[in-house]
Amino acid sequence: MEKLLYGVAYYDEYMPYERLHEDIKMMKDAGINVVRIAESTWSTLEPQDGIFNFHHIDRVLTAMEAADIKVIIGTPTYAVPTWMVKKYPDVLAVTPSGQNKYGPRQNMDITNPTYLYYAERVIRKLMEHVKDQPCVIGYQLDNETKHYNTCGPNVQLQFINHLKSKFQSLDELNKAYGLDYWSNRINDWNDFPDITATINGSLSSEFALFQRSLVTNFLDWQASLIRDYKRPDQFITHNFDFAWRGHSFGIQTDVNHFDAARCLDVCGADIYHPSQDELTGCEISFGGDLTRSMKQDNYFVLETEAQAFVDWVPYPGQLRLQAFSHLASGANMVSYWHWHSLHNAIETYWKGLLSHDFEPNPTYHEAKIIGKEFERLSPKLIDLKKENKVAILFSNEALTALNSFSDFHKGLEYNNVLRLFYDALYRLNVECDFIDPSTEDMEKYSLIIVPSLYSASDALLLQLNTFVENGGHIVYALRSGFADENVKVRYSHQPGIIGESCGIYYSQFVAAKDVTLKDYSYSINHEKTTLKTVIELLVPGSAEVLARYDHPYWGEYAAITRNHYGKGTATYIGCLPGSELMEEIMKGVLNDAKLWDNNLHFPLITKSGVNRNNKIIHYYFNYSMEPSSFQYSLAAGKELLSDSIINTGELLQIEPWGFRIIEEN
Amino acid sequence: MEKLLYGVAYYDEYMPYERLHEDIKMMKDAGINVVRIAESTWSTLEPQDGIFNFHHIDRVLTAMEAADIKVIIGTPTYAVPTWMVKKYPDVLAVTPSGQNKYGPRQNMDITNPTYLYYAERVIRKLMEHVKDQPCVIGYQLDNETKHYNTCGPNVQLQFINHLKSKFQSLDELNKAYGLDYWSNRINDWNDFPDITATINGSLSSEFALFQRSLVTNFLDWQASLIRDYKRPDQFITHNFDFAWRGHSFGIQTDVNHFDAARCLDVCGADIYHPSQDELTGCEISFGGDLTRSMKQDNYFVLETEAQAFVDWVPYPGQLRLQAFSHLASGANMVSYWHWHSLHNAIETYWKGLLSHDFEPNPTYHEAKIIGKEFERLSPKLIDLKKENKVAILFSNEALTALNSFSDFHKGLEYNNVLRLFYDALYRLNVECDFIDPSTEDMEKYSLIIVPSLYSASDALLLQLNTFVENGGHIVYALRSGFADENVKVRYSHQPGIIGESCGIYYSQFVAAKDVTLKDYSYSINHEKTTLKTVIELLVPGSAEVLARYDHPYWGEYAAITRNHYGKGTATYIGCLPGSELMEEIMKGVLNDAKLWDNNLHFPLITKSGVNRNNKIIHYYFNYSMEPSSFQYSLAAGKELLSDSIINTGELLQIEPWGFRIIEEN
Amino acid sequence: MEKLLYGVAYYDEYMPYERLHEDIKMMKDAGINVVRIAESTWSTLEPQDGIFNFHHIDRVLTAMEAADIKVIIGTPTYAVPTWMVKKYPDVLAVTPSGQNKYGPRQNMDITNPTYLYYAERVIRKLMEHVKDQPCVIGYQLDNETKHYNTCGPNVQLQFINHLKSKFQSLDELNKAYGLDYWSNRINDWNDFPDITATINGSLSSEFALFQRSLVTNFLDWQASLIRDYKRPDQFITHNFDFAWRGHSFGIQTDVNHFDAARCLDVCGADIYHPSQDELTGCEISFGGDLTRSMKQDNYFVLETEAQAFVDWVPYPGQLRLQAFSHLASGANMVSYWHWHSLHNAIETYWKGLLSHDFEPNPTYHEAKIIGKEFERLSPKLIDLKKENKVAILFSNEALTALNSFSDFHKGLEYNNVLRLFYDALYRLNVECDFIDPSTEDMEKYSLIIVPSLYSASDALLLQLNTFVENGGHIVYALRSGFADENVKVRYSHQPGIIGESCGIYYSQFVAAKDVTLKDYSYSINHEKTTLKTVIELLVPGSAEVLARYDHPYWGEYAAITRNHYGKGTATYIGCLPGSELMEEIMKGVLNDAKLWDNNLHFPLITKSGVNRNNKIIHYYFNYSMEPSSFQYSLAAGKELLSDSIINTGELLQIEPWGFRIIEEN
Repeated sequence: MEKLLYGVAYYDEYMPYERLHEDIKMMKDAGINVVRIAESTWSTLEPQDGIFNFHHIDRVLTAMEAADIKVIIGTPTYAVPTWMVKKYPDVLAVTPSGQNKYGPRQNMDITNPTYLYYAERVIRKLMEHVKDQPCVIGYQLDNETKHYNTCGPNVQLQFINHLKSKFQSLDELNKAYGLDYWSNRINDWNDFPDITATINGSLSSEFALFQRSLVTNFLDWQASLIRDYKRPDQFITHNFDFAWRGHSFGIQTDVNHFDAARCLDVCGADIYHPSQDELTGCEISFGGDLTRSMKQDNYFVLETEAQAFVDWVPYPGQLRLQAFSHLASGANMVSYWHWHSLHNAIETYWKGLLSHDFEPNPTYHEAKIIGKEFERLSPKLIDLKKENKVAILFSNEALTALNSFSDFHKGLEYNNVLRLFYDALYRLNVECDFIDPSTEDMEKYSLIIVPSLYSASDALLLQLNTFVENGGHIVYALRSGFADENVKVRYSHQPGIIGESCGIYYSQFVAAKDVTLKDYSYSINHEKTTLKTVIELLVPGSAEVLARYDHPYWGEYAAITRNHYGKGTATYIGCLPGSELMEEIMKGVLNDAKLWDNNLHFPLITKSGVNRNNKIIHYYFNYSMEPSSFQYSLAAGKELLSDSIINTGELLQIEPWGFRIIEEN
Repeated sequence: MEKLLYGVAYYDEYMPYERLHEDIKMMKDAGINVVRIAESTWSTLEPQDGIFNFHHIDRVLTAMEAADIKVIIGTPTYAVPTWMVKKYPDVLAVTPSGQNKYGPRQNMDITNPTYLYYAERVIRKLMEHVKDQPCVIGYQLDNETKHYNTCGPNVQLQFINHLKSKFQSLDELNKAYGLDYWSNRINDWNDFPDITATINGSLSSEFALFQRSLVTNFLDWQASLIRDYKRPDQFITHNFDFAWRGHSFGIQTDVNHFDAARCLDVCGADIYHPSQDELTGCEISFGGDLTRSMKQDNYFVLETEAQAFVDWVPYPGQLRLQAFSHLASGANMVSYWHWHSLHNAIETYWKGLLSHDFEPNPTYHEAKIIGKEFERLSPKLIDLKKENKVAILFSNEALTALNSFSDFHKGLEYNNVLRLFYDALYRLNVECDFIDPSTEDMEKYSLIIVPSLYSASDALLLQLNTFVENGGHIVYALRSGFADENVKVRYSHQPGIIGESCGIYYSQFVAAKDVTLKDYSYSINHEKTTLKTVIELLVPGSAEVLARYDHPYWGEYAAITRNHYGKGTATYIGCLPGSELMEEIMKGVLNDAKLWDNNLHFPLITKSGVNRNNKIIHYYFNYSMEPSSFQYSLAAGKELLSDSIINTGELLQIEPWGFRIIEEN
Repeated sequence: MEKLLYGVAYYDEYMPYERLHEDIKMMKDAGINVVRIAESTWSTLEPQDGIFNFHHIDRVLTAMEAADIKVIIGTPTYAVPTWMVKKYPDVLAVTPSGQNKYGPRQNMDITNPTYLYYAERVIRKLMEHVKDQPCVIGYQLDNETKHYNTCGPNVQLQFINHLKSKFQSLDELNKAYGLDYWSNRINDWNDFPDITATINGSLSSEFALFQRSLVTNFLDWQASLIRDYKRPDQFITHNFDFAWRGHSFGIQTDVNHFDAARCLDVCGADIYHPSQDELTGCEISFGGDLTRSMKQDNYFVLETEAQAFVDWVPYPGQLRLQAFSHLASGANMVSYWHWHSLHNAIETYWKGLLSHDFEPNPTYHEAKIIGKEFERLSPKLIDLKKENKVAILFSNEALTALNSFSDFHKGLEYNNVLRLFYDALYRLNVECDFIDPSTEDMEKYSLIIVPSLYSASDALLLQLNTFVENGGHIVYALRSGFADENVKVRYSHQPGIIGESCGIYYSQFVAAKDVTLKDYSYSINHEKTTLKTVIELLVPGSAEVLARYDHPYWGEYAAITRNHYGKGTATYIGCLPGSELMEEIMKGVLNDAKLWDNNLHFPLITKSGVNRNNKIIHYYFNYSMEPSSFQYSLAAGKELLSDSIINTGELLQIEPWGFRIIEEN
């Protein structure tokens, strides 16, 4: 990128009256230098089969060109037009609830040939039309693509072919998935049943993996179409989204982000987070670290909230705090969804930078400050690079598999465990990357954190043992190593292969009912050690016991252990702690790995990196309603917002929801 | 009416053994002078296609005639017979959940031609049979007719025709409803999609309006059939019901009552309310005021509870209190559903005046007292007329539209707002009428209360501005004026057109989280000003601020304002108060309009009107388990129950669940 | 049986690697002397249509024979193979939610001729193969058979035939079920509608009865097939299960156990119960008493938990306590589901005696103790007989009917009432049998307990009146006698026919809101008399009032009454007490019947019976985490576990979760 991008999604198609030049004037006032257009507008772009209308796109491109605002073109393919569904109802996906109806977006089967035919045609027509426009700097493939649980007969046929190529024989498949159970055995490929009601978690997990591969294939196919046209200076990106719990929360269940990102030049994501009293910055950091890790590079925040919902309208200062928090994680673009609030339909109350009245409002006024600061500080803040020593190893497969057995683990869910770790790191001001089972260069990290890696291949687990042996540090959460890559529970002593490096085994695990810890040295009150979901009854071998269960019958078993293995250590947490206890556990693990050297704690958050000029940049954010202060202990430098000199040891004050940016000399 | 009607629904068809003459004897003992028969009895009336059997109707009419009990004949059309469904399964409506199954009533498509053919034939046969019976005083069309969410392909085709006649062109429709969003644009009428899964609130609201019109058309059509036969002295009525929350609660979502009532001679309704400790009389008053307002005339309570459910069996005194409460709102009939408790099926536990044993029971014994009093006081109490100065403006369209966005307003629902206002008036003993957007003579009111009029035409809002300008008083609830009649949010400053008379604007609204009021002069403790759902951040122009938000960031904004505009005032409430605060707000508004002059408060409830002899009647009800007393401050008169003289200033005692009726001299 | 059986379900088919001989060695170490095999293994037994493979069965039988472990063969019919569903999709049952999908077991229509054809063939093939194996001691028909709510058109046709044979005419049926209501009348058999959405509780209850008869017929048919082959020394059993609320809870709604058991030689059941802190033994006792009562004989616990779920993994001592508790109720077999934990699919976390690692674990180690004790004490403990004087009269028909009206009774459910009685008896250490309306020899009991016998024939109620007249004692729960066998509410004074023996009547019943008792002599604090669901307003005739309602309006009515009728007494409880009050009520009733003579109370539980040698055996169980002691007051004898002499009056100590077994001299 040439400079930091500050953007909005803009839909000329949706305007209730002619606004284009007035909007551009207001954008310029706010420092908006990029707009994202065209995604979801298929019905205006191709109002009837084969009849194309570039009216809105043309006039917006012309106007943006004149205003020196850059444009990202989105392919319009995630919302199909009425005429297509009327002509070819089969484009609507069949899910376990039956065939989808028209109305919502993302209702189609992304493997349907008719849909693909039309999608290809509209993309090619669009590309022919826009590719030479100077203001067009890049393309977004589709939007928040997922598999939408498409599982009709055609998809199941493809899945059977996938299995045929994965397994040598049906015998092998039956054995790997344990299909003899409840007469689910398949003795002839022609007998393959509808899998939507399967009670076999191995089969359903493999189907989920297959469904995720459909997303990778779809985006890869769209990227190949774009590449037929795009200029070398134009990028391809995609707007990934995360597991949603009223806001961006965790690893996406329906996409393999690392796989799907391979076809992109720049990764993008939407990051939506709680705000007002609930604004912590944690989701900004989480989404940023994850998106940066997809290609180990800077990324775009293609969508984030301006006003959005009634409980997200930012307090004064929060919009600015949020924007710079994205930069601190390595974003090169912060773009709002969307410019103006919609006057009709389901997202009427997902408000944009402007309210329905298009008038300046407090949020817009704050955006104007951000825009000016982005422009001024762009050379210092763009392309922030990080060399983190901590990585979180996540796995889409473990997520699917663990969650499919959640009811049997008293509600244990993968993303809850992952976030429990991540959030503790965040509050302790330890930055991290994400890696997944495809990662080859684990060795560059000192500490790998492994949330409930329920299912994994022998190879991956052996790789982790080797990592420790060679001097790395690992911390495992409960249930790790339990099942193989086919979600067959290992029939060795648990936790299987990693038991070797962890120096423990267990054979029973029970509900965490009225169970706390004892015999620990963490600085935490006993009552705050209450455990959740399930506990594993660990028997230490070579491992040292960091805590035991406090319970009338399970008190003999270990809860948390640490083992020296080769040159490294492996810590195993056989239970699910609360967030405060997790911080204490992590402090211990970080100390083992010699990675914990700061005393700043949430709500004071710090992020660092190296800029284009190889200068070290430090951000300090005050995520609270109270003023904050701290003693700056690093090398002397300059505070960039105020352009003032900062000396080591100086006491810095930060106003509520405020922040400082220091460039070391 | 000749005299007050005291009635029951009577089903000779459902009797487990021969009871007719014994039942009539018991009815006479209880003063029952009207029975409602025949509705829902299609399968006994026409046991096979074209074969009619008037056995039950004939014997009941003959017996009632002899006993001098009047009869209302209900058309049997809301429960279709088995043979019809077996021959023509298509009469069962298709709803968003698929096609209905046989079993429940109201499962058919009220637009299905086969159903209409059979309904017409059975109505005509029935009318030919009963029209000349002297005891038959009127007819009830169908029962609790609604559209039952019929939305099959045939209904959607009719809806498309409705849209074709409403809009000049598809372009106009696409623009009005904002269908460009998410590619929902319809570029050819032939592309019109299944609308049951639409994400466009404008389209779904228009479909709801269209569905309500099906009810109006259906009742109108039934009325036209009846008119072909009925004697001039016979009336046509219908049994409307209200939005249901375990009891009659608010405006009906599925019927436009004012529209549908035009084909009737007398309006009727069923009014079911909590009882025992929860008996407040509020639903009796609400349902009465609403039904009286449909034609601005006296009305029938065609159904209300006798014993009904286990939590509705009345305490001693309650049945009588309830009966006279209906009269006090303007009812000319109080009729129980139903005479006897059913021995089979789903309403077995919706008990009648008699239990399953048909024996006298405490509730029946109380009915005997009521019957005698109705008979004796009928000349004084029948045809009570009211000239209310307060009206509540409701809107079916606003209800549908607001509720379709309820999730985005933290659960704000139309009927909750309406009842918040209504219930405050009720507890303050201020009687009111209901009006809807079709009302032309607003000017006869001094105060119009406008619950969240979320969607409304410019014309209506301008009419309201004029009403204030001419000296009227209005109080608006939050979200009023927000969208136009197509449920497109206005792109002016909010609250749009009414901002003019209210002297305010706002551009942001946020969740009401830990928000109370400050800077107010209401007599209420600060902690009781806690607000719910959402708050609008009001910026006063010419308006005076009655309260501001007490919140660290929204404290600069107004919460409640009052504006002098022309000769009147407009009060705007930008938030959702609790019930106690609402009473305080209403006291202020009523004082502005000089309409609050009594000090009686719930649980002492008073209602007034003028009787046939132009005498003023006052009712005083004690809705509590404790004795009550008050000083009677009006003109001297006579207490009608005790036939005793009452002087101004006299202290009146009322026993628990008791009441007094005073006729001014 | 020759000796006590200690068993496991064993699935060679599911093994992840060759384990047979190792497993048998571990079984022998644990005293396992019987395995249950083959049920649910159709897809391995008949991998393709007509191709049979006895590999697993053969090798297991051979190995068990050699190891002197007995085998029970289960027919594999409750889980259909993939090829059958692919060829004949119609074998999958149609339920009210549509047609079942492949995946789960028990998804087929047990009346489908294709399914029955294949089921018969595989059973016959299996029988031919195994019948002569000496180690095969018996056969289990299918498993946990129920009707699975099959209700497709074919089933409804059979139901119509059932009705045709039950009723003389449609008129009679219409009258019995009150079908005139809401036009549900059926005037021609050809008009018979889909009944799945019926609102008529009489019709739906009859359909439920019909569906239960399908189960009886199915098991009877399977038994007849087995009888064509089995040796005289081999038994036929079935594994019944109970109404499930996360564990075995109450009377099964979907099977008439007494009917279905007639085709068996020995009754069997699975009994799953809460464990750890929630282990009370109550479900072991309940399931045992019910299964023993099916044929008034000893029974098999064909399945119970070993480790099972995370909240059921037993504390030390609990597995042994449980095993002997089963014997104390009359079981001759205790068999775990299952030997080893499964490595795939939905029951992966329903763990067996072995964990997934197949290694000895604390639960397995405890089983080894049990196995030795079973072996040693078998001659003393097998075939324990009981002569109980108390019976609980349950009724599948009353259960279905009452529950269909549960919403109208504030959540009153049949099994809750039944368990309220049963659990009070259990805690008071009073043993009982179960009887149902088919029981002829009521006279052998002194006290019959009748939980909410909502629907019953005149004949049954008259039989109960006679029982009292002849000197028996009865206690009725609310709602008893209310409706006839067609679920038509009686139109006499309630409680109908039994009102005669109870000496009461009532005509109204109301919600139990803030209602307690007064005027009672039970030893219980007033606040613990709070009543639930509904109360009947009882008017005593000849009955004595044991308690009245404490309520401002219902205080004049009786709540609990007792009546001397003939030589016996009838107690009527018109309300739903809490568990402590129920114990007090039962103490009174038991005293009336002279049946309460012990002072031991839960958590100390005692059970008794007579063994093969006509010796009296007493068990004493300590169901708590605390040590317990009591003075032994019965005849001197021997404590069998310790082989020590016990004298009358001796103080016995029992360790937590421990027990003693005393054989009187």
